[in-house]
Amino acid sequence: MSSDLKIIVSYDGTDFVGWQIQKAGRTVQGEVLKALERMHKHPVKIHAAGRTDSGVHAHGQVINFHSDIASIDPQRFCVALNSYLPADIRARSSRAVDGEFHARYSALRRTYRYHWKVGSIVSPQEHRFYSVMTHTPSVSRLNRLCRPLVGTHDYSTFTLPTEPSENRVRTVYGASFFPLRGKLVFQITANAFLWRMVRSIAGTIVELDKMDAEGIEVERRLSACDHAASGPSAPARGLFLHHVEYADEYM
Amino acid sequence: MSSDLKIIVSYDGTDFVGWQIQKAGRTVQGEVLKALERMHKHPVKIHAAGRTDSGVHAHGQVINFHSDIASIDPQRFCVALNSYLPADIRARSSRAVDGEFHARYSALRRTYRYHWKVGSIVSPQEHRFYSVMTHTPSVSRLNRLCRPLVGTHDYSTFTLPTEPSENRVRTVYGASFFPLRGKLVFQITANAFLWRMVRSIAGTIVELDKMDAEGIEVERRLSACDHAASGPSAPARGLFLHHVEYADEYM
Repeated sequence: MSSDLKIIVSYDGTDFVGWQIQKAGRTVQGEVLKALERMHKHPVKIHAAGRTDSGVHAHGQVINFHSDIASIDPQRFCVALNSYLPADIRARSSRAVDGEFHARYSALRRTYRYHWKVGSIVSPQEHRFYSVMTHTPSVSRLNRLCRPLVGTHDYSTFTLPTEPSENRVRTVYGASFFPLRGKLVFQITANAFLWRMVRSIAGTIVELDKMDAEGIEVERRLSACDHAASGPSAPARGLFLHHVEYADEYM
Repeated sequence: MSSDLKIIVSYDGTDFVGWQIQKAGRTVQGEVLKALERMHKHPVKIHAAGRTDSGVHAHGQVINFHSDIASIDPQRFCVALNSYLPADIRARSSRAVDGEFHARYSALRRTYRYHWKVGSIVSPQEHRFYSVMTHTPSVSRLNRLCRPLVGTHDYSTFTLPTEPSENRVRTVYGASFFPLRGKLVFQITANAFLWRMVRSIAGTIVELDKMDAEGIEVERRLSACDHAASGPSAPARGLFLHHVEYADEYM
């Protein structure tokens, strides 16, 4: 029996030029396809929940594809796939889904996390996964600055003018900062994100905290609907596609 | 004023052919010297506590050298050095020491740690720093197997015949397994180690646990004083030079 599979994939984005196959450079999609095509012995077409940029990591990227390999139990497919993948990409779990499932179009909510280490030396074991925050932040102010971001808004301020979609209205369900194992994490959940939106928001909020600004300043910048109103973008290295949510039957 | 400096250095050993400068390949010593020589504008001579092998990491490698840069406070020297080092090497701290201090010859005790992940998928964020244990270990038996290793013994069994020092007697102060954040750690402390000794001991103990052997078997192998009596060596990737101890005035 052939089946439609959903696989949760984690990767260290450092040594990739991003998710999507490009003319030059090592891509996550390219490596996953190479592994799947070695298993299937013919071309395979895959869809992914998020097209992560160069250097961006994933804890819970989701992909789907149709497989005609009947001999592998869908739940064990991830184990087989891992023996074909390089060590900086791991399939965390796999399951069968119906033919309606599409990793990108069926996604209801996406959560990204941004990791900072505050003011100290980033160890060689961590440097790929954290950015450094050079000032001592106020976590309560950071969270006050996040509040105006939540809701349904036009987020043009926090994307680049080259963003392909004309409609820049998205719904942010939550945005907050919290300490985790000695680091500072920014977590943001939305139905979908514009290009560079998480890095632009993260960089702007941290900049505003440094300037002792308050939420009214975020409201002002958001309502400008102009990229010129954003602060600097946070670098790619601290960013993770953390989790993608679907309807219950697909989780 | 010029000064003698002691620096604690941490590194991700994955992309190095080891500590020591060799004819070909990227070495930790080579990168540290390059950074120091750019700062000093003349050659610098450094000593290190341990010559870690290809792929072996360090949390607390110790180096010393003489510096004629008077403008940098010894405690801040690590910060300056980090701006010249690649991100996979970090100076964790620095201090002035007297001219008698020698990172290798003054060392009293060295501690190595070996990191395992048990039977599950090693994430792309961790694969550089953990080995996989394919069986479910008994931590209490692992610790019973460790007991005969402690003491002053000839450890010829746990080194290679090419080990340069003729005297293979060392003193092991402690050897134990313990769980840490969902992983299993093997920690061993000795006055000094023979070449490949930690990897040989770690691999042998894990192999004996898999065979349901007990401490008497470790005693038998140790007293054979013959490399043929050892089990397989554990791979380099899980191993860290964790900590080096000196007389109190140097800590």
